[in-house]
Amino acid sequence: MAEIKGTVDMLGRSGLTPVDDAVKILMDRLSTIELSSETVSLEQSLDRILAKPVISPEDLPTAARSTMDGYAVRAADTFGASQTMPCYLNITGEVLMGEAPAGEVKKGCCHKIPTGGLLPDGANSVVMLEHTVPVDETMIEIVKGVGDGTNLIQRGEDIGIHARALDAGHLLRPQDLGLLAGIGVADVPVFKKLRVGIVSTGDEIVPYGKKPLPGQIRNINSITLSGMITRAGALPIDYGIVSDRMEIFFPAMEKAVLENDIVLFSGGSSVGVRDLGEQAVEALGPPGIFIHGVALKPGKPLLMGLSGTTPVFGLPGHPVSALVCFDLFVQPAIIKLSGLGREMEPPPQTLAAKLSRNINSAPGRKDVIRVRLKKNDGSWIASPVMGKSGSISTLSRAHGFFFIDEDSQGVSEDSTVEVFFYK
Amino acid sequence: MAEIKGTVDMLGRSGLTPVDDAVKILMDRLSTIELSSETVSLEQSLDRILAKPVISPEDLPTAARSTMDGYAVRAADTFGASQTMPCYLNITGEVLMGEAPAGEVKKGCCHKIPTGGLLPDGANSVVMLEHTVPVDETMIEIVKGVGDGTNLIQRGEDIGIHARALDAGHLLRPQDLGLLAGIGVADVPVFKKLRVGIVSTGDEIVPYGKKPLPGQIRNINSITLSGMITRAGALPIDYGIVSDRMEIFFPAMEKAVLENDIVLFSGGSSVGVRDLGEQAVEALGPPGIFIHGVALKPGKPLLMGLSGTTPVFGLPGHPVSALVCFDLFVQPAIIKLSGLGREMEPPPQTLAAKLSRNINSAPGRKDVIRVRLKKNDGSWIASPVMGKSGSISTLSRAHGFFFIDEDSQGVSEDSTVEVFFYK
Repeated sequence: MAEIKGTVDMLGRSGLTPVDDAVKILMDRLSTIELSSETVSLEQSLDRILAKPVISPEDLPTAARSTMDGYAVRAADTFGASQTMPCYLNITGEVLMGEAPAGEVKKGCCHKIPTGGLLPDGANSVVMLEHTVPVDETMIEIVKGVGDGTNLIQRGEDIGIHARALDAGHLLRPQDLGLLAGIGVADVPVFKKLRVGIVSTGDEIVPYGKKPLPGQIRNINSITLSGMITRAGALPIDYGIVSDRMEIFFPAMEKAVLENDIVLFSGGSSVGVRDLGEQAVEALGPPGIFIHGVALKPGKPLLMGLSGTTPVFGLPGHPVSALVCFDLFVQPAIIKLSGLGREMEPPPQTLAAKLSRNINSAPGRKDVIRVRLKKNDGSWIASPVMGKSGSISTLSRAHGFFFIDEDSQGVSEDSTVEVFFYK
Repeated sequence: MAEIKGTVDMLGRSGLTPVDDAVKILMDRLSTIELSSETVSLEQSLDRILAKPVISPEDLPTAARSTMDGYAVRAADTFGASQTMPCYLNITGEVLMGEAPAGEVKKGCCHKIPTGGLLPDGANSVVMLEHTVPVDETMIEIVKGVGDGTNLIQRGEDIGIHARALDAGHLLRPQDLGLLAGIGVADVPVFKKLRVGIVSTGDEIVPYGKKPLPGQIRNINSITLSGMITRAGALPIDYGIVSDRMEIFFPAMEKAVLENDIVLFSGGSSVGVRDLGEQAVEALGPPGIFIHGVALKPGKPLLMGLSGTTPVFGLPGHPVSALVCFDLFVQPAIIKLSGLGREMEPPPQTLAAKLSRNINSAPGRKDVIRVRLKKNDGSWIASPVMGKSGSISTLSRAHGFFFIDEDSQGVSEDSTVEVFFYK
């Protein structure tokens, strides 16, 4: 795979790929992958992404409706009416909610109408209750005239028939479900939820419910990655802990690639297992590995490849490193392959905070510093949560993280940093 | 209920409650409600909120482990070692992943150790591979000495036995599940998910899958509110469309209050139905209504009450008004009753944007202006999405909203506004 820019190995034989370059290479690789879609019921469509535009099959509202409690009138009958010069109209009918209006509003007449009531024939406007004074059961005084179309929502004014209600790539929020309900769209074309397979390796890893023997450690990564996949809007498929013996690991990876849209394996941390991951991805067929090793701390040993059109990510075995790699590479990949339209992407949720102390960093790599946030006198203070990269409690204590970029040797106390939240 | 501050009616007999006061009154009412908890499996605990602190039942790691590939040594054997003055150690063993180390590291000796390997007896430090040069199969040269405890994570250094792993009120994020897995906590005490009942009224409302007859309108609010409840972390229970005839509406509300932690009804918009909602909440027993009508546009007719310890919200019938009231009142109520700890609450996700045009506002009420965001030359432009308050398409076109406060008569073009996102 010598022709692929960014392919390097972990054994120091060439440089590490800078994070931004690695993300660009990844996004470029993903851009040719075709997305699949399916139809789901409106009830099932929350937080899914539209695969096709929705064209409104009808006008909403289906006919002109009043937006006020009051009287449906012919506007011309009220022209010039005022407190000092009121006009008088005969009440000749009443519009009831949920029913078609009965009869026509004739010249000099009006019908009582509630908010949401359908405008009766003959009328072209509504006088709000507050601008009327009852004379008796059959007549009102109008103290403020209305123009044509006042206090109405016209047929199709919310959305017109054949208008584009929602674009492809739209993330279906609660209000979007409301719009689809309003125009009677009960079946919704959405992109399929991505299936993301998780294979954990490492002979020292045991299921978290099992008491570890000396030298063993409970499986932290599978449940953590599952949660991150769920929160990214995809479906985690956990293949459990797979032995790092080639004859067991290779077929497990092959099965995971067959059954999923994306595969993550979280490696044992010994050099032998690292090599095994590299060999396994190459064995899964072309195009193979395109990134191995990034200039990132923690997260350096990241491996990214493609088996056919299935992206495969080899994540570091250490939980903190694995999660940093998820945030920076896997999550953007899931979003890219989810079909989300550019304009639905919210700006990244960040917050400016003052750093509580100096942090040093080696130039030439991107450092991810986890922080805890605290409000102090109305401004935010970010305190670095230090700890070894295998230390899961540091992630649990952190509210978010900030970056120290490749060209920086550190950030000094009281500097302002841009903190990204762990959602 | 004359003794309750803020109780006003919709018929102009007294003033409307300012939004911030209404929120304070609501929060005050909710603060006495006791929360229920339950135990769920770790797999089921993502995004749930801890009801009790978790105390670690064991040390993590359970014994000192290497954080590097290298050699386990007695640090004193390496003191002063350098490129020019290396020291030499005999390789007398190897630590295997997942196994207890065999034998002891004696003076002048070392054992090969992988990252994550358990520190063998006798050793107190690890020299990383990069600082060694192999001499032959049985001996290495060490070119950089290490101090006691170098390249190790000590027993209990991630989290110690009996230490508080997580506090009550903690929102369980993926990394928190990882921490719980790491210390073998498979059963998690969490607050019960809140059940939020939704009752839709209005004789003009039909199920969205049904073709509306003249005067009828499809049910938009039930599915929209369901989605918002789900996104707020609670469980929506939809009671469908209930007739606004007292003998049907009252028992339906009674049932909903019995079966849920919070009840929303989304009223028909006629004056008669509004009164019915008020009567129904009073009929549900004390303490009854504490807010009726807020100085808010859209959203003025909001009603809030308590039946025993169950909050009941009467939302406006118009979808946009209903959703604004949900955002400002129901969502904070759900969060308050979910048990979420203060320090897990993320700062509100807002963004500063320039307003694309002048917007007028009546003083004395809070206006909620829905906007669409667009990036222009690196800064954000917020364009108001105008439309009637019944117009669901305006909400669907909006990325978020900003407030015009009570004391303002409007905001002029190019002013900077703080936009809250629709998640």
